[in-house]
Amino acid sequence: MKALVYHGPGKKAWEEVPDPTIIDPTDVVVRVDTTTICGTDLHILKGDVPAVTEGRILGHEGVGTVVEAGSAVSAVAVGDRVIISCISACGSCSYCHQGLYAHCLADEGASGIGWIFGHLIDGTQAELVRVPFADNSLYKVPDGVTDEAAVMLSDILPTGFEIGVRYGRVKPGDVVAVVGAGPVGLAAMMTASLYGAARVIALDLDTNRLDQARAFGASDTVNSADADWIDQVTGMTDGLGVDVAIEAVGIPGTFDACTRIVRPGGSVANVGVHGAPVELALQDLWISDISITMGLVSTSTTPMLLKLVAQHKLAAERFATHHFGFDQVLEAYDTFGRAADTKALKVVISR
Amino acid sequence: MKALVYHGPGKKAWEEVPDPTIIDPTDVVVRVDTTTICGTDLHILKGDVPAVTEGRILGHEGVGTVVEAGSAVSAVAVGDRVIISCISACGSCSYCHQGLYAHCLADEGASGIGWIFGHLIDGTQAELVRVPFADNSLYKVPDGVTDEAAVMLSDILPTGFEIGVRYGRVKPGDVVAVVGAGPVGLAAMMTASLYGAARVIALDLDTNRLDQARAFGASDTVNSADADWIDQVTGMTDGLGVDVAIEAVGIPGTFDACTRIVRPGGSVANVGVHGAPVELALQDLWISDISITMGLVSTSTTPMLLKLVAQHKLAAERFATHHFGFDQVLEAYDTFGRAADTKALKVVISR
Amino acid sequence: MKALVYHGPGKKAWEEVPDPTIIDPTDVVVRVDTTTICGTDLHILKGDVPAVTEGRILGHEGVGTVVEAGSAVSAVAVGDRVIISCISACGSCSYCHQGLYAHCLADEGASGIGWIFGHLIDGTQAELVRVPFADNSLYKVPDGVTDEAAVMLSDILPTGFEIGVRYGRVKPGDVVAVVGAGPVGLAAMMTASLYGAARVIALDLDTNRLDQARAFGASDTVNSADADWIDQVTGMTDGLGVDVAIEAVGIPGTFDACTRIVRPGGSVANVGVHGAPVELALQDLWISDISITMGLVSTSTTPMLLKLVAQHKLAAERFATHHFGFDQVLEAYDTFGRAADTKALKVVISR
Amino acid sequence: MKALVYHGPGKKAWEEVPDPTIIDPTDVVVRVDTTTICGTDLHILKGDVPAVTEGRILGHEGVGTVVEAGSAVSAVAVGDRVIISCISACGSCSYCHQGLYAHCLADEGASGIGWIFGHLIDGTQAELVRVPFADNSLYKVPDGVTDEAAVMLSDILPTGFEIGVRYGRVKPGDVVAVVGAGPVGLAAMMTASLYGAARVIALDLDTNRLDQARAFGASDTVNSADADWIDQVTGMTDGLGVDVAIEAVGIPGTFDACTRIVRPGGSVANVGVHGAPVELALQDLWISDISITMGLVSTSTTPMLLKLVAQHKLAAERFATHHFGFDQVLEAYDTFGRAADTKALKVVISR
Repeated sequence: MKALVYHGPGKKAWEEVPDPTIIDPTDVVVRVDTTTICGTDLHILKGDVPAVTEGRILGHEGVGTVVEAGSAVSAVAVGDRVIISCISACGSCSYCHQGLYAHCLADEGASGIGWIFGHLIDGTQAELVRVPFADNSLYKVPDGVTDEAAVMLSDILPTGFEIGVRYGRVKPGDVVAVVGAGPVGLAAMMTASLYGAARVIALDLDTNRLDQARAFGASDTVNSADADWIDQVTGMTDGLGVDVAIEAVGIPGTFDACTRIVRPGGSVANVGVHGAPVELALQDLWISDISITMGLVSTSTTPMLLKLVAQHKLAAERFATHHFGFDQVLEAYDTFGRAADTKALKVVISR
Repeated sequence: MKALVYHGPGKKAWEEVPDPTIIDPTDVVVRVDTTTICGTDLHILKGDVPAVTEGRILGHEGVGTVVEAGSAVSAVAVGDRVIISCISACGSCSYCHQGLYAHCLADEGASGIGWIFGHLIDGTQAELVRVPFADNSLYKVPDGVTDEAAVMLSDILPTGFEIGVRYGRVKPGDVVAVVGAGPVGLAAMMTASLYGAARVIALDLDTNRLDQARAFGASDTVNSADADWIDQVTGMTDGLGVDVAIEAVGIPGTFDACTRIVRPGGSVANVGVHGAPVELALQDLWISDISITMGLVSTSTTPMLLKLVAQHKLAAERFATHHFGFDQVLEAYDTFGRAADTKALKVVISR
Repeated sequence: MKALVYHGPGKKAWEEVPDPTIIDPTDVVVRVDTTTICGTDLHILKGDVPAVTEGRILGHEGVGTVVEAGSAVSAVAVGDRVIISCISACGSCSYCHQGLYAHCLADEGASGIGWIFGHLIDGTQAELVRVPFADNSLYKVPDGVTDEAAVMLSDILPTGFEIGVRYGRVKPGDVVAVVGAGPVGLAAMMTASLYGAARVIALDLDTNRLDQARAFGASDTVNSADADWIDQVTGMTDGLGVDVAIEAVGIPGTFDACTRIVRPGGSVANVGVHGAPVELALQDLWISDISITMGLVSTSTTPMLLKLVAQHKLAAERFATHHFGFDQVLEAYDTFGRAADTKALKVVISR
Repeated sequence: MKALVYHGPGKKAWEEVPDPTIIDPTDVVVRVDTTTICGTDLHILKGDVPAVTEGRILGHEGVGTVVEAGSAVSAVAVGDRVIISCISACGSCSYCHQGLYAHCLADEGASGIGWIFGHLIDGTQAELVRVPFADNSLYKVPDGVTDEAAVMLSDILPTGFEIGVRYGRVKPGDVVAVVGAGPVGLAAMMTASLYGAARVIALDLDTNRLDQARAFGASDTVNSADADWIDQVTGMTDGLGVDVAIEAVGIPGTFDACTRIVRPGGSVANVGVHGAPVELALQDLWISDISITMGLVSTSTTPMLLKLVAQHKLAAERFATHHFGFDQVLEAYDTFGRAADTKALKVVISR
């Protein structure tokens, strides 16, 4: 088959590789019909994720069709159209039993983290992919849900919802600020409505992204380049700050901003992937009754979000801004890598 | 009456002052029968809390008897024996309606914080004290509960429980580490049993305090001066870290320690009062699915804890290590200020 | 002033009565600008509520303007435009401290229940009304919210939300059935969106009401007169039943229906006022892992719902189907009493 | 091997049967070291459970040693000493993903209920037993936990805790009444301490059982044969009723009693297995803000309870009142069947 193979920092190729096969009785092989690219894939290509070794097939998102199933697989069958979750879960360890699949203890490889596709094992930017723990890692796609909507459930929508909205404890009537209007920030904005947010304030430096944010559920926008951006945000509350501040960038400045706009009793939910420590102003914050959360998506809410997509309550397909064939995957990377210019959110790559 | 008056950094006196009187119809005046000293009082005396001005009567803990009640007071009456909560709450603002009395918006003075006794208004280290918002700030003491047990409900027991145990989301079967075995850390250890902790690990540098910790509910102790203290703690879990780490010191090192011993999916509950920022290793922690909480006690659980004290399920009196009369209040301060030498936990000052 | 006075079963009059005055320092007097009629008022007029004695002014819903305030009132002031909550709450008893205002222990009269307007004390169908515990029973109306929207927050919207949606534990992705499409059932449908319901199924015998239901958020309707109505409902799920069944009628048959359409692990939330016992099929249900809840609204969510009305996220004014002046109050009763004919939901009576 | 075989109503025999074998790759075979008898087994023997057909080996509780494991089993291995949970769970259906193993959709047979041992497939009162879905149905026993303690985790302790204490939402400071002091009622009393109950009131008609109750955590006892038993219970509260009433008998009278002693805002948790409908006084209760729950244990808390047993925080072995060898199983049934005379709680049957 053909696949997108990592050959060390800065090097990748769409090339012929051996087909994957069933190894364990809980495996299936899926023919990938649609995949996409994540910001993490760009980090890997820069060499930022040392666990990814040369020869690895990239990608952890996808929708496809089961073509072969191990003897212990019961929840899916050959021919089923499925979402491939970015998190692999054994279903029987103590973390899986509490729904914290991100920390599955039985994963393949050494990381102790449920994200293994395109990381510790070969991924989804390929014509075929082996999926371990298939019963707990695949979700059947109902009729009427398109591939380009379904593929947003592999990672981005559950990430915005679980790590942003749910960890942030958004509740009816809340004012929610989302700092960073990239794909995952937009996913948090879109799903904040599921807990009845009264206002969703999008913050970003890029006016194009702020314009897009309104289509994803933002009721208000603030350009964080403005000198008075904190006052603008506070002015949209009763003066005490927002109920929930969601960090969707991954740098110290935006994290710090979240701790400064949150009200006493509120929540800061960090979704961004950070590469450096941050300074926490505990001398001011110790008295503030806030919670600060962070984490990797478990995709435990994928089936629930899929119901809402099927009922047309979440317009997941809205993230798909550009479309490519499998043989255009390098072009897709280029478009996604220059998102500021191309205004790409998610690029959809289909068979 | 006589009272302990602050006269600027390093200066205090037990001296004659005018009796307090009813100002608002929701006020009462309480004759103080028993009071105590908090670590915060020591900070004030050093000049660390600029909001406390010269002439202020100190103290925010006490048990006493209502001697006069305003016209709008209905929940307590003259003659009632009451616990004076360290937090004053109007009972009708948005924060009070959600039980977050620490952030009562109707407080007297400018801080926007429900702690006002011995801070923004005169306090409880006095023969009499005016108590605003009496209906929401006093709790009747049932027969059979001693003053020295009841006074621990003004601040210390609810602080350990609300900010340590509840914010830390302790649940049955958990392994809980409490870093710092001073009074508030011991209060967290004692109340961790209320949510069925399987193990409570006390950490401190002081072996005397670690010995005391066992009487307050610690099942295990670790001297954090040991080079391998992290390994010792982790060895008391399944190897992945503690479910809940409670910070009860208030310095960067102990806060950092908590983030290093907590397991994925666990909680860090900061109870300590910090004077400096801390560095948060978000480059490692973003993936960890932990929550970090902090806050000022609301004393919303005081009535509940009082029921448990009355049923002899919490031995609150165990904190009372030294006893003084009102006219020995300066001696009491000296004993409490040299706790490492005197082994004082709480000094009880009674009429 | 003029008021609607109850004179025993079947008898009422719009007549001159003495103006109310401040009695306690926590009272205010409100000039009623807008009021409405509740199904409970019809029950009282039939003589079904013996606690209501002759001479009582009816009504427990209203929007008005504060004209006089007691000395201990601080949260509202003369001139404020306010929603009068149907529940009166002292703010300082143990039930008020947990937000369960419906069971306020300090209420006036003997019922031990926070509903006292038009029941144990004079009500809101009058030009003026005395409001006890004003700080905890009134909510300021922001500019831009009309009287006819605001008056729905006195009772009906919080009832549907608190007793139906919240007690029913509606969560994102749920299929919710609401049995009974009268005003309170419609309020549950409208507010089910605040927790991200995937489908809201309205059930009623009246096709007119089912048509109306779609405007209030129902995604599907089923006529419960159909022989196969249970199969129709189950067919809108995965075959196992609904996640939440909300009873909004108050008779044994509809309660029983709810227990038959709920899935294992789901919830039955009873909102209806019942006059007779029901048979619970515990021989079948003991194994079902369901919860059954019931209760009187506490209106603790009124401020939150008001924020959503102000942000145009809840179209509260949609309940107002008919409008009358104060001097047409008898006509308003007639229209509301013949709702099946007049298609009235809520009749709005304004100064 | 030898096993206890059901031969129709009233008939059972300890007889030679074929050894079980691995059927699916997720199966294991366990050598049973210790088993016990449940009240449900007595019901089956009376013919009350028609799904149990002639030839079925009875029993759904046990501790044993893995002797053979299917190719897809990874969580346990040959030689492991394990608790056999009374509930079988596939680990990958929608109910398993939410921890509601009792309603596992992938069970063997037709019931749609996770209880299948000694019901739809052969059970644990045998020398060997085939365990399907082994990874999700077995728990390794740590050293230091005896068989007679561990076997109480197959069913009785999680049942009292999950269906009584957790569904009843016991919280610190609560007054909890447990109606029925049989084994499952005692399990609820013992585990009520895990959420900090202030008082646990045992109710029963049998004074012997009330005496035993104190050793299991009851702080108070009331003989429900007393004419004034309701007043006695209410007198142990603030006069408003208990916070939580746990029904552990399974007849209409005790269920009704629970709804009469619960306070407004409280919970009734039904644990008893009922054979007839009950009348629910909804005409009185609709206003009461109570929840009524019921269900079959999911044993999702077995690993957590096991930690507490291992830490000597729960004295699980206290239920074991009588001991028998496998060849005395008929005698064990006789002793357990005459519990009122023999004072048996749980009979332990060991290899």
